[in-house]
Amino acid sequence: MTLYSETPAPTGRDPRPASLVEQAVQRLAANIVAGLYAGTTLPTQDELAREFDVSRTVMREALSMLVSRGMLDVRTKTGTRARPMREWQVINRDVVEWRFLRTPDDAFMRDVIEFRTEIEVRAARLAAERGTPEELVAIRAAFDAFRQYKFGDPEFFEMDEQLHAAILKASHNRFFDQMAPIVRAALGLVAKAERAAPALGDEVIELHRRVVVAIEARDPVAAEATMRALLAHTATDVEYLITQK
Amino acid sequence: MTLYSETPAPTGRDPRPASLVEQAVQRLAANIVAGLYAGTTLPTQDELAREFDVSRTVMREALSMLVSRGMLDVRTKTGTRARPMREWQVINRDVVEWRFLRTPDDAFMRDVIEFRTEIEVRAARLAAERGTPEELVAIRAAFDAFRQYKFGDPEFFEMDEQLHAAILKASHNRFFDQMAPIVRAALGLVAKAERAAPALGDEVIELHRRVVVAIEARDPVAAEATMRALLAHTATDVEYLITQK
Repeated sequence: MTLYSETPAPTGRDPRPASLVEQAVQRLAANIVAGLYAGTTLPTQDELAREFDVSRTVMREALSMLVSRGMLDVRTKTGTRARPMREWQVINRDVVEWRFLRTPDDAFMRDVIEFRTEIEVRAARLAAERGTPEELVAIRAAFDAFRQYKFGDPEFFEMDEQLHAAILKASHNRFFDQMAPIVRAALGLVAKAERAAPALGDEVIELHRRVVVAIEARDPVAAEATMRALLAHTATDVEYLITQK
Repeated sequence: MTLYSETPAPTGRDPRPASLVEQAVQRLAANIVAGLYAGTTLPTQDELAREFDVSRTVMREALSMLVSRGMLDVRTKTGTRARPMREWQVINRDVVEWRFLRTPDDAFMRDVIEFRTEIEVRAARLAAERGTPEELVAIRAAFDAFRQYKFGDPEFFEMDEQLHAAILKASHNRFFDQMAPIVRAALGLVAKAERAAPALGDEVIELHRRVVVAIEARDPVAAEATMRALLAHTATDVEYLITQK
């Protein structure tokens, strides 16, 4: 087994000892993975603080970190429960969003389209193969909402995002599904880029329509090809904007 | 722009207000993204605590969270600096590792191989196209280290991991490179699985050799095909183990 018990710094050495909160997070996570709280609620914050011999402040922060990672669900009435492992957030959403907040360099834009192409083309194929009838209805509904807006409306991009997220979900692969925050942030960037040159976006609805039809037809090859065409269009737009700068 | 300024809960509502640490993290991140600390060191922990009007404990935890996300670099002698954005950790490493600690269900195993196949096949292609001479030397060195060990040695899997990580890095796409923790954790699982049935692993070195040779030959098509064959082999092993259970 090559798994670390602790999170190392991304490159090389991290000279810091784990903070009290980090230690509490590690211990709580170990308990959750061991199934200690399965089918029941966690002890209260005060009980956990006593058990772990840390202050209430430290325990509150530790619980808060596990909530933001999708590992715990806090309800005022029913208490705190561990969430199913498939819902644990593999993607650091806030880091993704911070990285995308600044208008990125050209290489970054190309990287993200390259990555989306791999993820979304495969997800479209899987959605055609595995999507449940309900999921196909959700994809169609997202498309119908999307097509009502004009390119450049803020809702246009919101609905675009929902459509892409619905396809990722219908892939029934939890890793593809978890990449949704990256796709979402990338769509925000493309939206900014395309607002600067709206003529580029005219074919966008038609390209999405073909993806939806292919998934509904349960045609994995067509789903893959149409999604690839859609993302190639996006890539061309981005390249155009890069060369025009 | 559809980016949130705050990290929402993964599904639906998160009733908690942001904790003091989370608020401090958000403010520090905003400053980093705005370039406030570019080319210089951050103020000390005490100075930042005063500036943000929070306790030193809260500020210490906030800084600690940004270090574990690869956004800050703390050195005892030179102080704290913001790291380049490409090094910010998009993947929640500890969540990945916790998820992989428990022996997962069959669907999870299939999901992770499906995901790895997309990521690593494309990365092998890109490595053949874009890898620098130094990166190709690193890939060969990782392979040479890897082949010295016998299947089942703990070092065999460590070197396996280094080889896969070197290929991801040579893809020159920072999103593929950032998926390394998932690949790493997945290799740990496969290692466990294959130790239970070592006869399955006999061809593994030869399959890796073909990938390395294709990348060295700068042949993207062969790199893609050989990596696909390698991962298909892994998938078969895992399927075998699942059906034998």
